Amino acid sequence: MTVSYRLSEIAAQLGGRMLGDAEVRISQIATLEAAQPDQISFLTNSKYRAQLASTRAGAVILGEADADATELPRIISDNPYAYFAKVSALLNSLPETKPGIHPSAVIGAGAKIDATASIAATAVIGEGATIGAFSVIGAGCYIGENAVVGSHARLYPRVVIYHDCLIGDNLIAHSGAVIGSDGFGIAMDEGHWIKIPQIGRVVIGNDVEIGANTTIDRGALDDTVIEDGVKLDNQIQVAHNVRIGAHTAIAGCVGIAGSTTIGRYCLIGGSAGILGHLQIADHVEIAAFTLIGKSIREAGSYAAIFPFAKTEDWRKNTVHLRHLDDLVKRVKTLEQQLESLSVKLLKRES
Amino acid sequence: MTVSYRLSEIAAQLGGRMLGDAEVRISQIATLEAAQPDQISFLTNSKYRAQLASTRAGAVILGEADADATELPRIISDNPYAYFAKVSALLNSLPETKPGIHPSAVIGAGAKIDATASIAATAVIGEGATIGAFSVIGAGCYIGENAVVGSHARLYPRVVIYHDCLIGDNLIAHSGAVIGSDGFGIAMDEGHWIKIPQIGRVVIGNDVEIGANTTIDRGALDDTVIEDGVKLDNQIQVAHNVRIGAHTAIAGCVGIAGSTTIGRYCLIGGSAGILGHLQIADHVEIAAFTLIGKSIREAGSYAAIFPFAKTEDWRKNTVHLRHLDDLVKRVKTLEQQLESLSVKLLKRES
Amino acid sequence: MTVSYRLSEIAAQLGGRMLGDAEVRISQIATLEAAQPDQISFLTNSKYRAQLASTRAGAVILGEADADATELPRIISDNPYAYFAKVSALLNSLPETKPGIHPSAVIGAGAKIDATASIAATAVIGEGATIGAFSVIGAGCYIGENAVVGSHARLYPRVVIYHDCLIGDNLIAHSGAVIGSDGFGIAMDEGHWIKIPQIGRVVIGNDVEIGANTTIDRGALDDTVIEDGVKLDNQIQVAHNVRIGAHTAIAGCVGIAGSTTIGRYCLIGGSAGILGHLQIADHVEIAAFTLIGKSIREAGSYAAIFPFAKTEDWRKNTVHLRHLDDLVKRVKTLEQQLESLSVKLLKRES
Repeated sequence: MTVSYRLSEIAAQLGGRMLGDAEVRISQIATLEAAQPDQISFLTNSKYRAQLASTRAGAVILGEADADATELPRIISDNPYAYFAKVSALLNSLPETKPGIHPSAVIGAGAKIDATASIAATAVIGEGATIGAFSVIGAGCYIGENAVVGSHARLYPRVVIYHDCLIGDNLIAHSGAVIGSDGFGIAMDEGHWIKIPQIGRVVIGNDVEIGANTTIDRGALDDTVIEDGVKLDNQIQVAHNVRIGAHTAIAGCVGIAGSTTIGRYCLIGGSAGILGHLQIADHVEIAAFTLIGKSIREAGSYAAIFPFAKTEDWRKNTVHLRHLDDLVKRVKTLEQQLESLSVKLLKRES
Repeated sequence: MTVSYRLSEIAAQLGGRMLGDAEVRISQIATLEAAQPDQISFLTNSKYRAQLASTRAGAVILGEADADATELPRIISDNPYAYFAKVSALLNSLPETKPGIHPSAVIGAGAKIDATASIAATAVIGEGATIGAFSVIGAGCYIGENAVVGSHARLYPRVVIYHDCLIGDNLIAHSGAVIGSDGFGIAMDEGHWIKIPQIGRVVIGNDVEIGANTTIDRGALDDTVIEDGVKLDNQIQVAHNVRIGAHTAIAGCVGIAGSTTIGRYCLIGGSAGILGHLQIADHVEIAAFTLIGKSIREAGSYAAIFPFAKTEDWRKNTVHLRHLDDLVKRVKTLEQQLESLSVKLLKRES
Repeated sequence: MTVSYRLSEIAAQLGGRMLGDAEVRISQIATLEAAQPDQISFLTNSKYRAQLASTRAGAVILGEADADATELPRIISDNPYAYFAKVSALLNSLPETKPGIHPSAVIGAGAKIDATASIAATAVIGEGATIGAFSVIGAGCYIGENAVVGSHARLYPRVVIYHDCLIGDNLIAHSGAVIGSDGFGIAMDEGHWIKIPQIGRVVIGNDVEIGANTTIDRGALDDTVIEDGVKLDNQIQVAHNVRIGAHTAIAGCVGIAGSTTIGRYCLIGGSAGILGHLQIADHVEIAAFTLIGKSIREAGSYAAIFPFAKTEDWRKNTVHLRHLDDLVKRVKTLEQQLESLSVKLLKRES
């Protein structure tokens, strides 16, 4: 069952400059520390360079700067991390899934399921839904009425897509992800909240990955939009009418409030948050645990992390935050007093 | 299939003062920017007033202050946002669901399911559970033993309600919501944690909405209680023995620790947190990303957001937080030195 | 159906020193405030001692210091909280589940399900998976191909365990928990993210509890490891290649980034976060809402909570954080000016 490739075959498929024994057979990828002689490893962080000397790996992937750092069979790449990803994909292709509909799946009237698609046990496909070619719908998934899932999707067990959502090709969605739930729209009316129907959809482009238990709400009136190539980690909350620009990557536990637009190629750290109705430019990096409360018009890196300390030190320092305004006033007073004292002295001297 | 109403019919049903052509037919609601001639729009934020001039909407909903801001057919309301919600509900009634139990659903012995209720494919209803009139239990939902769900509930696919929980009427629960999981109760005993059985329930009032992947733990001994009209967004964690007062609304990703009581009509921003065993008064507003670590006895607005900045500015400023206590001491020293210097000078002058 | 025990029988089973009427019958445990005469209560926090005088409890569990604080029948324990946990477990044993496989469950080829295990309705067990003795797999759970679940597991409805994961004995996993989803591994290649296959597993020891909607990602190359006795609350995110040491307890909504190692017996507060590739020592306590951005080598308590205040006070104080570096410079300037002024005066005096 295990595939293996000669190093020369890998380089033939994926490019890169090959040095050393081209015939070494590779069947898996591993860290420098754990690799075995039939495995290939990689160096993407120079602080691990010392491990090159001791690794048992049969071959390694290196950047140009490290091309001569070992005698091992090696492939030199401009982007060794991406090369590693490609080699791993080559060696670890997804298990094949058989096309067809499991007898325990429930298919609504008028659903259009491509003959090459696979619908697993206990999945439920709503009326009028579309499942594209080679897509795999995992056990217990639910695809709502008239939702469209493109080709080559892989939905792990228990993903829910609500009615009418529109998904491009190559979606990966992990278990517990919910796409198209109602946005949080309520209006106060004489002491009671009235629900605002959420009549928009979620529209997702191609090549998007959505992590486990991540939620993306449908739009209130217009759509919530996730553009091509967006990568969302686990436990992220995307509120109604958010737009996430192409190729933006968001780490776990982030919350994005309603109607905010995030640019392309942004990187958002874990547990960060973005308030509603904001605009975030392209190529913005937001640190973990940072709340963005205003629009960001300029690419760059932004942060708002409160530094941790031993609790007693934290307490000792933090108590003053409640009096920072007073402290600033005291400093201002000192400046004025010192100034007036200096002037007085100067006068007396003259 | 599309419903439509004359503007006069809308006003007849929902009230409000009508101005302009009462015969215009309305079939959907939309933003000022997107609305078409058969759609009604609304103005609830004066900063969008300029869009009134250019909207293609067939009619608009306005507050009294804007009653004359356009010639369009219009309805004037004291609360145009709530009016918008009502019009949208009128135009977007939920799809009808057929009463009955899907053949793939599994119904436990002694379960009492109202003849008007709808149990979707692959749902599982535990022994002795009760499902009220006109309630809709979505695909893959699980209702535990002896749990009670009132009338007119709408559970989207894959909601779980654990055994013995008690739910009022008109519950809306989105996919992935978990109601009644065990609270986090453990006791350390000679190097090992012992589990404390969680024998309380979750008790939920009427007219509650629970967002996707939100979790509400059952009580340790007494119950966790969600009062009438509470609205919970996605990915919220409500720990055991919390009580949330009526008509409180909580945004996404909030965590509320055990045994805390939150008042009525509170508004809690996204990713906020409240520690355990606290009391929060009625009409308290808590900002996003704010941790409440002490009880709040007084209505009002509370916050604890660390301001974000460009990372280099954030770093430059934030490094001093670890020395704030020293800084305060330095200012105090300066004050004392300046004071003693002034006294000295004064003495010399006299 | 209700079990009941004489106080003497409880002490015989669980130890502790008994005082007062040994014959009182106990059928449930309750708080001092709510307890009835057939119930036992407990005092673990001295601030509730006054309630001892008014409780209607038939018996109480007390620490040595409170042994004489009441005349009620009582059991004296070194660790009354753990004793309470044990009594509650005695009085509230889990409902028995019948071994066997529900006809609506779907069992993959080659799955090894112990004859004493219970597989509930609509559960799906993948090919080659193993379910140990006396384990209970709830409705709608999914156990992936070749995954192993040890004995005495209790999986509540809709838990997902991905393929090849390895779980010890006595796992408790609550609804919506996802174990083994792909880690967030992506590499940028010419403007597009490439997915890095996640070929590690999740390996979980014995006696672990996992809360509702918590997610644990599988390793990228090596495994993600949860050691014995770890207790995870709801909505926690554990990224790929994290290792959590034995008997560590983590409260709700915590996020732990990739490749971080957490020690044994740590306590992590709600909504805290730990960045990736860090080492956290044994016996570290981390406060709620605290982000740990560097390794912690020393046991102890750490915090980084921004203190909340009324919004107007928070705003007034917080605005200065953006100018803290300037403030420090102003204080330094004052110190220098005052020093030079003092020197000048001193010179003049001499």
